[in-house]
Amino acid sequence: MSNLQAQVTSTDRAFHVEGYEKIEYDLIYVDGVFAVDNTELADSYRPYGRALMVIDETVLSLYGDAIRTYFDHHGLDLTVVPVQIRETAKSLETFETIVGEFDAFGLVRTEPVLVVGGGLTTDVAGYACASYRRNTPYIRIPTTLIGLIDASVSIKVAVNYGKHKNRLGAYHASQKVLLDFSFLATLPEDQVRNGMAELIKISVVGNSEIFDMLDEHGPDLLRTRFGHLDGSAELRAVGDRLTYAAIATMLDLEAPNLHEIDLDRVIAFGHTWSPTLELTPPAPFFHGHAINIDMALSTTLAEQRGHLTVADRDRVLGVMSRLGLALDSEFLTAELLADATGSILKTRDGLLRAAIPDPIGSCRFLNDVTTDELADALQMHKKLVEEFDRAGDGVDMFTGAHD
Amino acid sequence: MSNLQAQVTSTDRAFHVEGYEKIEYDLIYVDGVFAVDNTELADSYRPYGRALMVIDETVLSLYGDAIRTYFDHHGLDLTVVPVQIRETAKSLETFETIVGEFDAFGLVRTEPVLVVGGGLTTDVAGYACASYRRNTPYIRIPTTLIGLIDASVSIKVAVNYGKHKNRLGAYHASQKVLLDFSFLATLPEDQVRNGMAELIKISVVGNSEIFDMLDEHGPDLLRTRFGHLDGSAELRAVGDRLTYAAIATMLDLEAPNLHEIDLDRVIAFGHTWSPTLELTPPAPFFHGHAINIDMALSTTLAEQRGHLTVADRDRVLGVMSRLGLALDSEFLTAELLADATGSILKTRDGLLRAAIPDPIGSCRFLNDVTTDELADALQMHKKLVEEFDRAGDGVDMFTGAHD
Ligand SMILES: NC(=O)c1ccc[n+]([C@@H]2O[C@H](COP(=O)([O-])OP(=O)(O)OC[C@H]3O[C@@H](n4cnc5c(N)ncnc54)[C@H](O)[C@@H]3O)[C@@H](O)[C@H]2O)c1
Ligand SMILES: NC(=O)c1ccc[n+]([C@@H]2O[C@H](COP(=O)([O-])OP(=O)(O)OC[C@H]3O[C@@H](n4cnc5c(N)ncnc54)[C@H](O)[C@@H]3O)[C@@H](O)[C@H]2O)c1
Ligand SMILES: [Zn+2]
Ligand SMILES: [Zn+2]
Repeated sequence: MSNLQAQVTSTDRAFHVEGYEKIEYDLIYVDGVFAVDNTELADSYRPYGRALMVIDETVLSLYGDAIRTYFDHHGLDLTVVPVQIRETAKSLETFETIVGEFDAFGLVRTEPVLVVGGGLTTDVAGYACASYRRNTPYIRIPTTLIGLIDASVSIKVAVNYGKHKNRLGAYHASQKVLLDFSFLATLPEDQVRNGMAELIKISVVGNSEIFDMLDEHGPDLLRTRFGHLDGSAELRAVGDRLTYAAIATMLDLEAPNLHEIDLDRVIAFGHTWSPTLELTPPAPFFHGHAINIDMALSTTLAEQRGHLTVADRDRVLGVMSRLGLALDSEFLTAELLADATGSILKTRDGLLRAAIPDPIGSCRFLNDVTTDELADALQMHKKLVEEFDRAGDGVDMFTGAHD
Repeated sequence: MSNLQAQVTSTDRAFHVEGYEKIEYDLIYVDGVFAVDNTELADSYRPYGRALMVIDETVLSLYGDAIRTYFDHHGLDLTVVPVQIRETAKSLETFETIVGEFDAFGLVRTEPVLVVGGGLTTDVAGYACASYRRNTPYIRIPTTLIGLIDASVSIKVAVNYGKHKNRLGAYHASQKVLLDFSFLATLPEDQVRNGMAELIKISVVGNSEIFDMLDEHGPDLLRTRFGHLDGSAELRAVGDRLTYAAIATMLDLEAPNLHEIDLDRVIAFGHTWSPTLELTPPAPFFHGHAINIDMALSTTLAEQRGHLTVADRDRVLGVMSRLGLALDSEFLTAELLADATGSILKTRDGLLRAAIPDPIGSCRFLNDVTTDELADALQMHKKLVEEFDRAGDGVDMFTGAHD
């Protein structure tokens, strides 16, 4: 747990308290985190002789035997709290259920909770840890691509409240994140595609080498789950290099701004108009498709503004399209964009701060995009995407499509 | 809002993130915080042209007119959220109600919520602020003695969960605490007495000058609400000196340990066996009486151990007794003490860490008190208190006595 030491200065009529809290955490690669000879995880629980694990139910059904064998082998008592969290159950109620399990377990001060699953599981359980005794440590094992390269890299945890995504939460770093990309072997393709949109994001505005790798190997990485499903050793190596670079880039961009005081955020590329778009269809978009549509439009806009060449614009749209990510949607209208602009201004202190590539691998923020310019860009964009596969539609665009 | 800047170091197989979050807050004396010519409060809201105020319903009924006049005078729109929180409603449900009001108000990022009331109100609303958008600033105006010298000096906010007090919460400092002791004029005597137990605490183990003031003026301060109700100017000055010293002492003791990593806490004097005792009677003890019984017994123990003279022991018990605080109770039994010891060991990493005076104004921690020694001390203590007023009973010992 992080300490917080402060100094007090005082006058006759006031006290001033000032201090610094140390925040420290590690992301550690472990290949096969539940392989019995990998002691990284067991070492963290040996002092307690036991572990409380909050785990995604699907992940439990796939990896439960291996997990139990692991903890048995290391002589550690394992208590399993399976959770099946959908976005609609990313709520205070689910948070309370998890807290109830902490209580029933009799969690001891400083004993870290183990959290295994995708971003939904780690966000909700992480917020429960943040609140329990005001600060309970936890260790995360992300099992989705989003979890591995985005959610668990961040220190943000939250639940939704009312119509607002992630409205209640905390900044609460996990002690450790154990990065094991072999979980991708069992992750459905639509979920991997969903995560790849965030990789496109970080590459197009933050790292052109990642973009080149996606351009060359994107569809193969998707199909082979970054080399973990029937992939060649070479492809696995590309996947490893790519995700390592993505995490490194994200940490470089975000570490100076962990509390999001600076609202000009490179990693908000694709997250300007998409929050409104994502929830518009009857069954919400996959996050990845929604942000991709936003990124695709922003890319067209960047070319119109002269920050990208036509060739680079088409390279970006091509990479997206070949991964099956949507470039456009019938739900994307000039009216929606105007609405979405109004919403985002509220959370960005009145400025648009729309991230766009300038050129690929670098970022610029636009504050002066008018409704008219946006409508023009949209019109041009809709014409443009006709030339791409599926006329710009995505593959498996909506959540719940398989339910 | 506090920023958090971190550095990243990395190897092929790991990332290490390390940074410091700056925490900064002020406690500022304002006499008559709602007097129109005191601009301290208005200045904080002028940039927003409005304020959202969460306020204790009783305080609103007493000060509502003055508050509305104040905000009107300064041309600030005031939205009032009255809450009537009892200890049993210090819950996630009440937290959610308050969050709903933040939403309805359309609270803007960086806009501080105003929280006015006793420890219950500031704890629950403070936790709502901690969670809302992961970090919403707030300004506290404590209106009880507990609030003024204890709850609002701390950065801890929380709600109860199940049978556990303050089980869910956060460390979330308010931007500012405005200290206005004139609120005590309307605070019922039992509530002032309740707060004075915390002043006895800080004095007996942390500051002998405060103890001397309590010894000389305790009952007068209680009766005149620290000079704010028919008190002389001299008495008011004593009250001011005393409470200033109490806050300063608490900050000195706690600032190096704001996250309570060090479990040897001077300000836990009286809080070793009382958590179990407090909730034992059908109507719970006032917190002040419960901790006072614990402090009284600990004082007897300190004398038996040779850390206090008999005269000093009796001085301490005398000050308590003259304030109407309980020295003992039929609910305090050897069995209860054994139970309570079991409970507290769990939250103090297996050590008792019982704070006792050594001598008045200084603290020592005991880890080696056996059940037998405790039972002996209790027997002796029960005999001893017979000599004091009301045979050691307190005045208005139980909450709900007036309901
Ligand atoms: N904290 C942050 O900074 C941050 C960043 C990005 C996303 N998020 C949040 O993360 C959530 C989305 O996370 P997600 O995309 O990981 O979704 P998710 O957690 O819902 O997982 C997606 C699906 O994959 C299944 N699954 C997980 N691991 C699997 C595996 N190895 N094999 C097979 N199936 C598996 C799950 O059961 C689920 O059905 C959103 O709520 C979002 O707000 C948070
Ligand atoms: N965060 C901390 O570090 C900390 C420290 C101490 C106590 N606390 C918490 O504080 C709570 C107790 O706070 P409290 O003792 O202030 O109780 P409280 O907030 O319930 O207030 C006590 C009573 O006084 C009334 N009241 C408040 N101000 C008044 C005024 N000026 N005039 C007339 N009536 C007034 C209230 O309506 C209430 O009935 C507990 O829940 C405790 O856990 C927290
Ligand atoms: Zn995203
Ligand atoms: Zn107390």
